[in-house]
Amino acid sequence: MTDTVHIDLGDRSYPILIASGLLAQADTFAHCPKASQALIVSNDTVAPLYARQLQAALAPHYPKVELVVLPDGEAHKNWTTLQGIFDALMHNGADRKTVLFALGGGVVGDMTGFAAASFMRGVPFVQVPTTLLSQVDSSVGGKTGINHPLGKNMIGAFYQPQLVVCDLDTFDTLPARELSAGLAEVIKYGPIADMAFMDWLEAEMPALIAGDKRALAHAVRRSCEIKADVVSKDEREADLRAILNFGHTFGHAIEAGMGYGVWLHGEGVGAGMVMAAELSQRLGLVDAAFVRRLRALVARAGLPVRGAILDSQDNAGRYLELMRHDKKSQAGAIRFVLIDGPGKAVVREAPDALVREVIDLCCAEAVQA
Amino acid sequence: MTDTVHIDLGDRSYPILIASGLLAQADTFAHCPKASQALIVSNDTVAPLYARQLQAALAPHYPKVELVVLPDGEAHKNWTTLQGIFDALMHNGADRKTVLFALGGGVVGDMTGFAAASFMRGVPFVQVPTTLLSQVDSSVGGKTGINHPLGKNMIGAFYQPQLVVCDLDTFDTLPARELSAGLAEVIKYGPIADMAFMDWLEAEMPALIAGDKRALAHAVRRSCEIKADVVSKDEREADLRAILNFGHTFGHAIEAGMGYGVWLHGEGVGAGMVMAAELSQRLGLVDAAFVRRLRALVARAGLPVRGAILDSQDNAGRYLELMRHDKKSQAGAIRFVLIDGPGKAVVREAPDALVREVIDLCCAEAVQA
Repeated sequence: MTDTVHIDLGDRSYPILIASGLLAQADTFAHCPKASQALIVSNDTVAPLYARQLQAALAPHYPKVELVVLPDGEAHKNWTTLQGIFDALMHNGADRKTVLFALGGGVVGDMTGFAAASFMRGVPFVQVPTTLLSQVDSSVGGKTGINHPLGKNMIGAFYQPQLVVCDLDTFDTLPARELSAGLAEVIKYGPIADMAFMDWLEAEMPALIAGDKRALAHAVRRSCEIKADVVSKDEREADLRAILNFGHTFGHAIEAGMGYGVWLHGEGVGAGMVMAAELSQRLGLVDAAFVRRLRALVARAGLPVRGAILDSQDNAGRYLELMRHDKKSQAGAIRFVLIDGPGKAVVREAPDALVREVIDLCCAEAVQA
Repeated sequence: MTDTVHIDLGDRSYPILIASGLLAQADTFAHCPKASQALIVSNDTVAPLYARQLQAALAPHYPKVELVVLPDGEAHKNWTTLQGIFDALMHNGADRKTVLFALGGGVVGDMTGFAAASFMRGVPFVQVPTTLLSQVDSSVGGKTGINHPLGKNMIGAFYQPQLVVCDLDTFDTLPARELSAGLAEVIKYGPIADMAFMDWLEAEMPALIAGDKRALAHAVRRSCEIKADVVSKDEREADLRAILNFGHTFGHAIEAGMGYGVWLHGEGVGAGMVMAAELSQRLGLVDAAFVRRLRALVARAGLPVRGAILDSQDNAGRYLELMRHDKKSQAGAIRFVLIDGPGKAVVREAPDALVREVIDLCCAEAVQA
């Protein structure tokens, strides 16, 4: 049985399909735009597992189905790798109707989306996310892009896919560390929007960690529903959409400060959510019990609850420096996504002294989960 | 007296201002978006002439006005140069409100626009075109981008500026060859849309070539009006907008085949319009007198009326190979912008044999103007 979640964005609306076995079925792609060729973009980890199945499923729809394989990992989310997609398109004689299929995790999806947004100023693309993180977050909502050496996702476009295909069977080949990283983006939807979902996650965390399909199907669907609701109200992040970045301001600083790829994105978000919750508490927005509860859930998902030490001399200073480059910053002031009472997020600034206190606490001590 | 042409695109509408002395006046920029900083992007030819004036005019509006200077020329319209804009933005601590000002010709405008479209997934930008070509064509309508080694403008975005400032005084420093190149894009508006404008151009060509401001003001305004009309009906080139590429299919092949920067874009368009007119005649769409008339006007503008030899063995084959990479091509078939009776353009395919005949004629013979 296939679950469908609709992203409602006027003439840029599209469905998210959620079920087992989807990517290998030709029917899944029956309503994709027609073209004389399709290009599958994948990486050297995922392509050997699923590219042949996807090629076979697309063959009835496109006279020519080509494949380009990128190196795996956040460290390759840059122009050099992106150029590999453009080169493949040019060498295959692609045109304005050529459809790109992103087969992989968030890095593949973000780069394929930006390539689709930019090639000939825009060709259609489809997301086929193969990690939990990309199914519940990055493949939905149209944020695409690459990293700048000084900041994550600094260069990109808002560009919506035609379709998102979440095949739950891809979790069978997902390493435990990646499953945990994906759970960080699932967990975030509770504190920012739906405490009943947080209750459910607390009850079902053992099943999720064990790879139970029924539990994972619900986690993916509910995450996509909440994201769809937020994105349909604020596609280009004028305001509301920023709440989806709960945990990301601290998390991005960890990722950038450690060097992309050392911490997984979801790991940074895990620790970052705990830090953002601590900051929320210090601003009087939530109580200590809420912070303890969130920290425990993050830990049970197999995620770090402490930040990395980025600088042995002035760790907090290094965090602040990196966070000032965050895209939410305005005129040098860092804007944090904080929890304004359980189930509700707010975007606001915070005094540097308080932020330093949180960083010192969350990075130095062995925090009890 | 300032002429104003409006580009009507709903919430992406903006004015084009046309007059002498505009870029040095603070008033010109009074309605630009507010921000804590602005970044002027220029090149090493234009910056020494006008950057200080523009900086002074922007100073009352922005606490900080920075400048980044790119190397001049089509050969630098690539990712490496674009990266220089992103680096400047990151090093200056730019945020989502930072406004980019493109000060230069089409290359600077296209790259600055793509940088603005992509930086943090979109920041505002203003076009201050300093060449005739960019004032009448490239700065208007929101096409931005960079070249791929295998094709011109293959990577980019549709992204509209907030304002276009056409300062006629910049023509005082424009080399004669660049003025002629700009006239190619002025001339094209006659055959595709307005034969009365073609009559006017035939009468005023001596004044235009001599740099007469009154004549140039009219040429800029009428060109912008026609372009505004076409773009407002078809922003993303679903169909109609392609007629603005009259002469560009052959022209782009010449530019790419010779190596970017050897022929100016306008020179390629000049010869390309003659070749497209010859093809139109062979398809029975216009008579020989029209082709002669257009060729004569192109020649009087100081532009080439013959194509370059791109391959001594198989020149027509090389043209066809390059033209198949054109963005208008579909499933490998080249789609030409042709003249379907004076003042009306049409986009259609043509038999290879006929295209080869035109290339052989237009590149081999010394055609009489």
